[in-house]
Amino acid sequence: MAWNETRMTLVGRICTDISTRLTSDGQAMALFSVAVNERKFDRELGTWVAGNSLFMRVTCFSKLAEQVAVTFRKGDPVMAAGKIHTHRYEKDGQPRSEIELTANAIGPDLALCSIEMNRDELADRPVEAVAA
Amino acid sequence: MAWNETRMTLVGRICTDISTRLTSDGQAMALFSVAVNERKFDRELGTWVAGNSLFMRVTCFSKLAEQVAVTFRKGDPVMAAGKIHTHRYEKDGQPRSEIELTANAIGPDLALCSIEMNRDELADRPVEAVAA
Amino acid sequence: MAWNETRMTLVGRICTDISTRLTSDGQAMALFSVAVNERKFDRELGTWVAGNSLFMRVTCFSKLAEQVAVTFRKGDPVMAAGKIHTHRYEKDGQPRSEIELTANAIGPDLALCSIEMNRDELADRPVEAVAA
Amino acid sequence: MAWNETRMTLVGRICTDISTRLTSDGQAMALFSVAVNERKFDRELGTWVAGNSLFMRVTCFSKLAEQVAVTFRKGDPVMAAGKIHTHRYEKDGQPRSEIELTANAIGPDLALCSIEMNRDELADRPVEAVAA
Repeated sequence: MAWNETRMTLVGRICTDISTRLTSDGQAMALFSVAVNERKFDRELGTWVAGNSLFMRVTCFSKLAEQVAVTFRKGDPVMAAGKIHTHRYEKDGQPRSEIELTANAIGPDLALCSIEMNRDELADRPVEAVAA
Repeated sequence: MAWNETRMTLVGRICTDISTRLTSDGQAMALFSVAVNERKFDRELGTWVAGNSLFMRVTCFSKLAEQVAVTFRKGDPVMAAGKIHTHRYEKDGQPRSEIELTANAIGPDLALCSIEMNRDELADRPVEAVAA
Repeated sequence: MAWNETRMTLVGRICTDISTRLTSDGQAMALFSVAVNERKFDRELGTWVAGNSLFMRVTCFSKLAEQVAVTFRKGDPVMAAGKIHTHRYEKDGQPRSEIELTANAIGPDLALCSIEMNRDELADRPVEAVAA
Repeated sequence: MAWNETRMTLVGRICTDISTRLTSDGQAMALFSVAVNERKFDRELGTWVAGNSLFMRVTCFSKLAEQVAVTFRKGDPVMAAGKIHTHRYEKDGQPRSEIELTANAIGPDLALCSIEMNRDELADRPVEAVAA
């Protein structure tokens, strides 16, 4: 619901514990970081070697935050889609900033794990209600 | 592992059954379609109304295809990330084409359902092995 | 300004003429298609070979459509960012559908061409006004 | 040409000067930052207000870097597509890190400016050669 949003998707591993808190207006919030390690083929060596790494902080809210908190732990393979912005804060009295992802969709990556679906709540959420 | 890939992420609902087959070289393959229904705010009506819809065919392979086949069914909320290309085929003797997504990561969207994680296989797949 | 938008970016070549029209409410509209040809490295051959291809229809509106119409022609290297949906239409009395990109930003890809910038209009469009 | 790349596109304004250098293997490199200012509709006020901001460092190489250096300046509207990673460095003896975009395609956003195309070099670069 905004102009000039910058959207992206992370596919990687959760590399911190999941921390949770309530926002000032009483909404659940979950925070964690995701690591993505590139692998590239070295044609001289004829093998795959480590490439660049990416670490990004992810936040989410409300029902999604509650599900993330009870479902995931450090090391889990995860997908997170949403929009990024620059988060500003202070550390030791110095201004710092960090790009973070506010995710509207998060799930495990089934290329690397298996799961059981619980569909009880889906019955209450027809497709038409998804976006509202 | 290619140049000029066009990457994207779908977040929507599975709107077909999951069909499976073996490729000519004996690899598991799963196919399904995803529907995404936009919702937009109508300022005159002061309410949310239906926007455009997107239907896209998704394919995946190997272990991911096996997990998708045993995990999902029509109606499930899903995320799928990968690359798109134009798939060409014939129908009634006429050439047809369709843009489809070859996904390398697929998972349920925890904004709309809850799950149980099975981590048995993760032990065998350290982060370093993920990409290879 | 909507929920459940599916956003993506094309980087490829314009593979049709640019066609233009006015919408029913008098807004300029431009249409063209973009081709993206994947290249992948064949390790057995030790060389790059053609991979999958993608063809996608792109539409844009208003000032962006006017600029696209006077700037581009078939063959030009282009970037287009926006959201996709399934466009439904009839052909020979049969229902057909096609996924198309409604772009909010379009430009030439400077990896493959050079340009001259005209900044006259930028003076009237401060950063703050960009989104509105 | 790697696994586990995280791809994204920025659409915003160049908010620094363009700086250039040669890499240790003699390749041209250009660096600049992009600002993206979200705008969101405030339903109570009935007007658009400022949302979150994003600042991201962008690097590019080779011919693209040369074109960027001679084409753009601070304030220009720009699109940049590529992959992101976490860049690590030291500042005042302290380890710091920053997420940056390595762009493979960059161009002006024609929604906000006009340009003249120079197609001389395109003749030497048929579509088939684009990716290699």
